Amino acid sequence: MTPEKLLRQIDFIKEIDKLKYIQRKTKLFNSDRCENDAEHSWHLALMAMVLFEYADESVDLLKVIKMVLIHDIVEIDAGDTFIYDTQKAHTNTEDERMAAHRIFGLLPKSQAEEFITIWEEFEAGETPEARFARAMDRLEPLLQNSSNNGGTWNEPGVNYTKVYAKKSAIKAGSKVIWRYAENLIDAGVKKGILKKE
Amino acid sequence: MTPEKLLRQIDFIKEIDKLKYIQRKTKLFNSDRCENDAEHSWHLALMAMVLFEYADESVDLLKVIKMVLIHDIVEIDAGDTFIYDTQKAHTNTEDERMAAHRIFGLLPKSQAEEFITIWEEFEAGETPEARFARAMDRLEPLLQNSSNNGGTWNEPGVNYTKVYAKKSAIKAGSKVIWRYAENLIDAGVKKGILKKE
Repeated sequence: MTPEKLLRQIDFIKEIDKLKYIQRKTKLFNSDRCENDAEHSWHLALMAMVLFEYADESVDLLKVIKMVLIHDIVEIDAGDTFIYDTQKAHTNTEDERMAAHRIFGLLPKSQAEEFITIWEEFEAGETPEARFARAMDRLEPLLQNSSNNGGTWNEPGVNYTKVYAKKSAIKAGSKVIWRYAENLIDAGVKKGILKKE
Repeated sequence: MTPEKLLRQIDFIKEIDKLKYIQRKTKLFNSDRCENDAEHSWHLALMAMVLFEYADESVDLLKVIKMVLIHDIVEIDAGDTFIYDTQKAHTNTEDERMAAHRIFGLLPKSQAEEFITIWEEFEAGETPEARFARAMDRLEPLLQNSSNNGGTWNEPGVNYTKVYAKKSAIKAGSKVIWRYAENLIDAGVKKGILKKE
C-alpha cells in the first residue's frame, strides 16, 4: 500500500507539469520561440547557482533556488501577465493567491504551508533571498531581449523609462549585477532596440 | 567595467539556453508533446524538493537539486540518447565528458571544477545524493509513460524486463518510492501498456 501522503505528493508532481504549457512573452536567446514557465524557472535556478556570490547580503542559496523553482507555479491557474501590461497587475493578484492555495494545497499540509510561505516571501521581496531571487527574475529577460534585437521591448508602450524602472529590482539584490544590467539597458538605447521615450 | 569573471558567467548562462531545444523521447503527462531537457530538469528539482523525505540515507538537498538541474547540460553537445537504445550507451560516454569540459569550462575555473565534480558525482551514482537524484531521474518518465498509455514503452524492444532493470535504480535511492514504482510497472503490465516479454 502506497502511503496516502506520497499519493498526494505524486498528485502535485503531476499537476505542475502544466507549467510547461504556460508561455511567457519573452523569447529564448537569439530566437523567435517563446519561453515557457518551466524553462524559465530552470534557467533562473541555474543563474542563482552561478551568480549568488554577487548577492549584496549573505543568502541561503537553497532558499533562493526553491523560490525561483516555484515562483511561477501559480500561473498554471492565473496565467502569465506581461510585465509591461498597463491594464492588469503583473503580480500579487487575488487570482495568484487562490492559485497558490489550490496548487500547493495538493501537497500534505506542512509541505503546502512551506511552499506557500516561500512563494509569499518571494512575492513580498523583503528578505535577502527574495531580493536576489527577484533580481534573477528580472535579469533573464533583459539578457534575452538584448540578444533578440529588443524582443519584448518592441511591444507598444515599452520604453527606456519603463524598462529602467522594472529592472531596478536588480539593484535591490546585487549592485555588481545592477551595474552590468544598467550597461545593457543603455546599450539597448544606443543600438536603437529600446526606445528612449 | 564589468568584471571579466561575471562576463564568463553570463556567457555560460547564455550557452545553456540551448538545453531548451534538446528533445527527450518521453512525452509530457497525458500528452503527445515531447519534453525538453530544461523542462525535465526543472521537474526533477521540484520532485527532489517534494520527495526528499523518502531518501533512504540522509541527503544534502541543495546538492541533489544542483545535480538534477545540471545533469543533462552535457546533452547540448552530446544529444539525448534513448534509455532503451540498444546501439548506443545511454550515459558515461566520452562525448559527454568532452561536453562537460567544454560547457562547464565556460565558467570561471573554480566554478567550472565545482560543476564538473557535481556532474561526475551524479554520473557515478555512488553517493547518497547521487542515488537519490538518479531515482528522481528514473521516476519522472515512469509517471509520464503510465499517464500516456505506455508512452515510450511502446517503442520496439522495450518490455517489462528492461523497464524493471532500468527502474531498479530507484531502489538504490528510496525503498518507499521503489515500492510505489514497482506497483506502477506491474499495473502497466496488467493494463497491457507494457509488454511482459
